[in-house]
Amino acid sequence: MKLEKKVAHFTTPLYLESGRILEPYKISYETYGELNADASNVILICHALSGSAHAAGFHEGDRKAGWWNELIGDDKAIDTNKHFVISTNVIGSCFGSTGPMDNNYPTPNPYRLKFPVLTIKDMIKAQKQLLSQLGIHHLKAIIGGSMGGMQALQFAVDYPNFADRIISLAATYATQPWTIAFNKVAIEAIRRDPRFKNGQYEREAFKENGLDGLAIGRIAGHISYLSPHSMDDKFGRNYVNNDGLFELFGRYEVERYMEYNTDNFSKLFDPLSYLYIVKAINTFNLSRGYDSLYDAILRIKAETTLISFKSDYLFFPHEMEHIDKMMKRNNQPSSYYEIESKYGHDAFLVEIEKFSKIIKEKLK
Amino acid sequence: MKLEKKVAHFTTPLYLESGRILEPYKISYETYGELNADASNVILICHALSGSAHAAGFHEGDRKAGWWNELIGDDKAIDTNKHFVISTNVIGSCFGSTGPMDNNYPTPNPYRLKFPVLTIKDMIKAQKQLLSQLGIHHLKAIIGGSMGGMQALQFAVDYPNFADRIISLAATYATQPWTIAFNKVAIEAIRRDPRFKNGQYEREAFKENGLDGLAIGRIAGHISYLSPHSMDDKFGRNYVNNDGLFELFGRYEVERYMEYNTDNFSKLFDPLSYLYIVKAINTFNLSRGYDSLYDAILRIKAETTLISFKSDYLFFPHEMEHIDKMMKRNNQPSSYYEIESKYGHDAFLVEIEKFSKIIKEKLK
Repeated sequence: MKLEKKVAHFTTPLYLESGRILEPYKISYETYGELNADASNVILICHALSGSAHAAGFHEGDRKAGWWNELIGDDKAIDTNKHFVISTNVIGSCFGSTGPMDNNYPTPNPYRLKFPVLTIKDMIKAQKQLLSQLGIHHLKAIIGGSMGGMQALQFAVDYPNFADRIISLAATYATQPWTIAFNKVAIEAIRRDPRFKNGQYEREAFKENGLDGLAIGRIAGHISYLSPHSMDDKFGRNYVNNDGLFELFGRYEVERYMEYNTDNFSKLFDPLSYLYIVKAINTFNLSRGYDSLYDAILRIKAETTLISFKSDYLFFPHEMEHIDKMMKRNNQPSSYYEIESKYGHDAFLVEIEKFSKIIKEKLK
Repeated sequence: MKLEKKVAHFTTPLYLESGRILEPYKISYETYGELNADASNVILICHALSGSAHAAGFHEGDRKAGWWNELIGDDKAIDTNKHFVISTNVIGSCFGSTGPMDNNYPTPNPYRLKFPVLTIKDMIKAQKQLLSQLGIHHLKAIIGGSMGGMQALQFAVDYPNFADRIISLAATYATQPWTIAFNKVAIEAIRRDPRFKNGQYEREAFKENGLDGLAIGRIAGHISYLSPHSMDDKFGRNYVNNDGLFELFGRYEVERYMEYNTDNFSKLFDPLSYLYIVKAINTFNLSRGYDSLYDAILRIKAETTLISFKSDYLFFPHEMEHIDKMMKRNNQPSSYYEIESKYGHDAFLVEIEKFSKIIKEKLK
């Protein structure tokens, strides 16, 4: 599989949903496989909250492959022998595309809290600019999970003729208050952390010791990504050590998992980016800008595949089913799959064997 | 209804499950109604994590009644014309019983992190000491929800002949990792808050500005007390103000609810008490000290009523059903009710009309 990692720079303004303008901006992206002569074999991959453009393969020195490596590659469900796969990093991110810690041109200072609020609509608009610059004016498919699944849906609504097909996993038609509440833990924990300094921290501040607020918010995140069932299987009521029972801060295995994952995360991810991306997730609502959800969904022309996971406690299956029902009522081309899984929301990342066949079949 | 508020002092040691000793200690409690001549009309009420002994009625100047006022009173389901109701504050609490901010006798200094770890077993042992001191050696019923429901169950297991009946609502046989993970948010948010000072804060430190860490942990708590459904009904995707959409910290109604409730809570509740009580909830496991859960439950002689709520996302209905099934298999006297409710875990506090009839019937 041919893997390329690039950054595209744009000096034209990006008109945002808020009315504000992002200019200039850059988009970090990776490509897998090769573009055919008439640019008709392109698949766009969209990542989730904490993801990056690195969806597949290995970079030099990497021990871990990209986040959907099981799915994307030669002879895999998203087959890079046939398809040219583009995976872009969303604007607002800290992994290469323009985000709040980039300079607020023409000043030499980072935007920080002056960065404009972004929405899912803005993210896909930026992706479309990138595709245009690459001479790609039509997509074979757009595929993503969680926030990536929101992008796929928003693409199908906003640009009905742009993609033949979308595959949206573990997403929703509009973020519900349950999910907004989980995100609230992160927002408050970051804002109230004295080391966050209202966004005036140094760029390198959290390399050694991550921001506690981000780690704490991420614990709430991890709860919503797992499920009661998967936690029972994975951790049970086991202690890290047997003395833990009568020590106030004695830890259960589930607590160690939370600490380990979130403390590492808080060293790698920028807190301002986290706030901006969480905001984009909270404000996601397919109906915004249209008369109703019905009107928004009625615009979809792409063959739509909706995949949910039975144990998803972040975006519940009925939210995806709701889209499918609306589309079927209008004889729009939709198929809905509810996958049996104990892994909760994370299933779209960890139970790939359960849905890769569906994706393979749909891309035939 | 006759209401009395008292504090009982104990100079005898309380031998804790950890092997440590609490001595001296005090228990704050309230009573509703009147004790009959042979002390045979006593019902014990057990409170939840953030509760207190104030379960019913009004104290002078109060605008809010006790937390189960709808259930306890003259002619109510727990009828104070007939019954003498005792509601005690758990040890470890900050509402009158001995807790970590009380003095570590004989020193003049608070225990703080030297306070011994408490368990649900310890809490009920202390309650039993109180009852003995009051000359009460048998109970008509023990009733509680959430952590109070754990206490009722633990009572029935540890002291099988002590109560004729227990009614446990929205609880479990052992706290599962899902719930421990929610509590982890609070533990880490409190510990890592610089104003917590590793427990060395001043007693009055949070009266004006509550500890952020406690407020943040409490947001996670509130998520687990509500349900996706009740949040949809209560908040939807409404903004506090319409400009919120494109403001980074623009708030949804659900966010305002979380902030309001948790910031107030953090002014009223002591962070060390919160850590100790959460620890007691995490370590709750009916089987501890017995060969198995089966053996523990086999000890129960009290008529057992288990009430769960369909939308409870903290202690899932199947956890309560599990106890019922075990008891029925052994022909022990158990009845199980799964109440239809959208209100999540909080239903045991807010949907009293849905289960008060069951309680009334059982107490006949």
